[in-house]
Amino acid sequence: MISVAEARARIVAAMRPTAPEMVALAEAWGRVAAADHASRLTQPPADVSAMDGFCLRAADGALGATLAIVGSAPAGHPWAGMVGPGQAVRIFTGSVMPAGADAVLIVEDAVEARGMVEVREAVRAGRHIRRAGQDFTAGDVLVAAGTRIAARAVGLLAAGNHPWVRVHRRPRVALLATGDEIALPGEPIPPGGIISSNAHALAALVRAGGGEPVVLPVVADDEAALAAAVEGLSCDLLVTTGGASVGAHDLVQPALARRGLRTDFWKIAMRPGKPLIFGALGEVPMLGLPGNPVSALVCAVLFLLPALARMQGLEGQGPAESEAVLGAALVANDHRADHLRARLAPGPDGRKVATAFARQDSGMLRLLAEADALILRPPHAPAAAPGETVRVIELGALGI
Amino acid sequence: MISVAEARARIVAAMRPTAPEMVALAEAWGRVAAADHASRLTQPPADVSAMDGFCLRAADGALGATLAIVGSAPAGHPWAGMVGPGQAVRIFTGSVMPAGADAVLIVEDAVEARGMVEVREAVRAGRHIRRAGQDFTAGDVLVAAGTRIAARAVGLLAAGNHPWVRVHRRPRVALLATGDEIALPGEPIPPGGIISSNAHALAALVRAGGGEPVVLPVVADDEAALAAAVEGLSCDLLVTTGGASVGAHDLVQPALARRGLRTDFWKIAMRPGKPLIFGALGEVPMLGLPGNPVSALVCAVLFLLPALARMQGLEGQGPAESEAVLGAALVANDHRADHLRARLAPGPDGRKVATAFARQDSGMLRLLAEADALILRPPHAPAAAPGETVRVIELGALGI
Repeated sequence: MISVAEARARIVAAMRPTAPEMVALAEAWGRVAAADHASRLTQPPADVSAMDGFCLRAADGALGATLAIVGSAPAGHPWAGMVGPGQAVRIFTGSVMPAGADAVLIVEDAVEARGMVEVREAVRAGRHIRRAGQDFTAGDVLVAAGTRIAARAVGLLAAGNHPWVRVHRRPRVALLATGDEIALPGEPIPPGGIISSNAHALAALVRAGGGEPVVLPVVADDEAALAAAVEGLSCDLLVTTGGASVGAHDLVQPALARRGLRTDFWKIAMRPGKPLIFGALGEVPMLGLPGNPVSALVCAVLFLLPALARMQGLEGQGPAESEAVLGAALVANDHRADHLRARLAPGPDGRKVATAFARQDSGMLRLLAEADALILRPPHAPAAAPGETVRVIELGALGI
Repeated sequence: MISVAEARARIVAAMRPTAPEMVALAEAWGRVAAADHASRLTQPPADVSAMDGFCLRAADGALGATLAIVGSAPAGHPWAGMVGPGQAVRIFTGSVMPAGADAVLIVEDAVEARGMVEVREAVRAGRHIRRAGQDFTAGDVLVAAGTRIAARAVGLLAAGNHPWVRVHRRPRVALLATGDEIALPGEPIPPGGIISSNAHALAALVRAGGGEPVVLPVVADDEAALAAAVEGLSCDLLVTTGGASVGAHDLVQPALARRGLRTDFWKIAMRPGKPLIFGALGEVPMLGLPGNPVSALVCAVLFLLPALARMQGLEGQGPAESEAVLGAALVANDHRADHLRARLAPGPDGRKVATAFARQDSGMLRLLAEADALILRPPHAPAAAPGETVRVIELGALGI
């Protein structure tokens, strides 16, 4: 058995970032940039006014001065002339500053009458002017390769004149649920059978992680059927659920061995979810998750999300951890890293309080769905009292 | 001018949750449930084994006992007989417990030979058995109305046998950028003009918030054109950018007044982004954001995201706030609530340290894109020293 950290490192190291594709800017949100995107222009393109008012020569802008209004320069309609001594031009937020003018009299400080404007507050050269390139200049990298593109970055790419964006293709993740006892929702349920929750829960997790899920038909516990199901597979990662242990009906390893599965490791010192297979089928990396839905989802948070991130050109670190205060005592842990389903609540001092559910049975999907966080219990962690600090993974923030 | 909190309350109160639609379970991730979804079955459907091994009568499971293996019950293939005294049936994780058996001998504690199995560790009645309904029973609400559906909830809906899910329709948000000086990326730029970053940044924010953006063509600073642009509008919310102030070229209010705009309010005591219009065009609520991209995005975080949440049947609270420690001093604030663009870094004691950028010019979209958080400065907040606690909105977690 290997540790969670080692398992994750080996999985992430085996992932290759997907090739780039060009998507319309309108589709770039949430994708990961596959190249540096430099600005194609300078912003602002010229010195512009930051306010509505009048532009003039600073030397003319003493308190009480009166200037002749010689023109108007709405945004998008630059005034082509030169502002001379004793002259003012009406401007607006975003207007290009006309030649000659080096100061802005804001509208609140101006009194207009009969084509003249009176200065009611002395101007200062340069004030209320946004300089050309104040935000960025042509050639500046606005969005670096390996950046997840948030809404603000979409705005920045627009402002830098990128109608198309080079991003990593969404990794295609094939999801193969195995088991004689499972059916998809709404389909006939075999005797003593249950509904397969793994395929679609994992498909949602793949979406949350930026990938494109491909849900394969459920495969019975039959070596030949399993081997056939992975023929002609077109994906960046194959994820199986179920059959990962070593019982007589745990057929994933022997069946896929027929197709050339090379197993890297298949046991991790963790709970829930010890029997996890990682290997490769030819060029396609393969992650064999436990069939138990709670184990499968916890393993997916720990290993599949980082794998997805790496395939999109990110680093593929583990899920974000934070600190919380224990709300109830925990017993000492054994040699397997534990991931306790827990509630989070705000504590009196503003710190988060994490309280593990009394029942941690991995058969209880509903409790996992109700959990706000996983409390991380390292191997051999001693018993812990209320008030002690623990590390947690917040599940809601992951969209899972 | 009204406060940020009052503006948000008035905006959210004017939003109506969209009507429900049925989506395939595979499309339900990220949507908001429009009804309680109760389980259609009991999980597990019967008492099942939690382990691989043998089931037997507890009375027969003393250390050293030997039992006859009379059958096998793989998951999905229940054993129809009755387990009698001195008998054992091979079972697997998820197998339905055959009648008569009330204990599980796990495979690690069993030694098989010539059709018999020897007990190497005494069994305990009920141990390693998951009881029928341990996870949930038919009729239990698995996902309540008003819940954003995470990957785990998708799994739970599957397990409860829901191939279709009743969710609120994604709110359609029409985005109308105004200004003579703006063009979309890749299009010809007018003299002294710039690229419109608002429409697509806001479209991405609408997606992040669960809505469906509709980007309208850019409209020039012309009352008639603006009034025409909103004819035949089909959306749940109209968002304009630009033209929201009171300058000669701020035409949104007068132009939309021609179409019957009823303005609720149009000034908020905040920075960036004071000139914000809220009202309604007939049945369609209308949010007029400032044209400045930084102001528009900050206002969208504070007002548009909660509006989107409310339209999806959520409460529509303001964006999540948390506490951070100041990394650098702040001057006293004036009467407008300020939203300082800031970096977050982990501090020595594990608390987050927020350091505002030295430049807070609302013309700098790039700094907004680089910000991890907005530091919230209430009206008239006194000067603050490094180490003091402030409230922040973390931007990355919002997908914006």
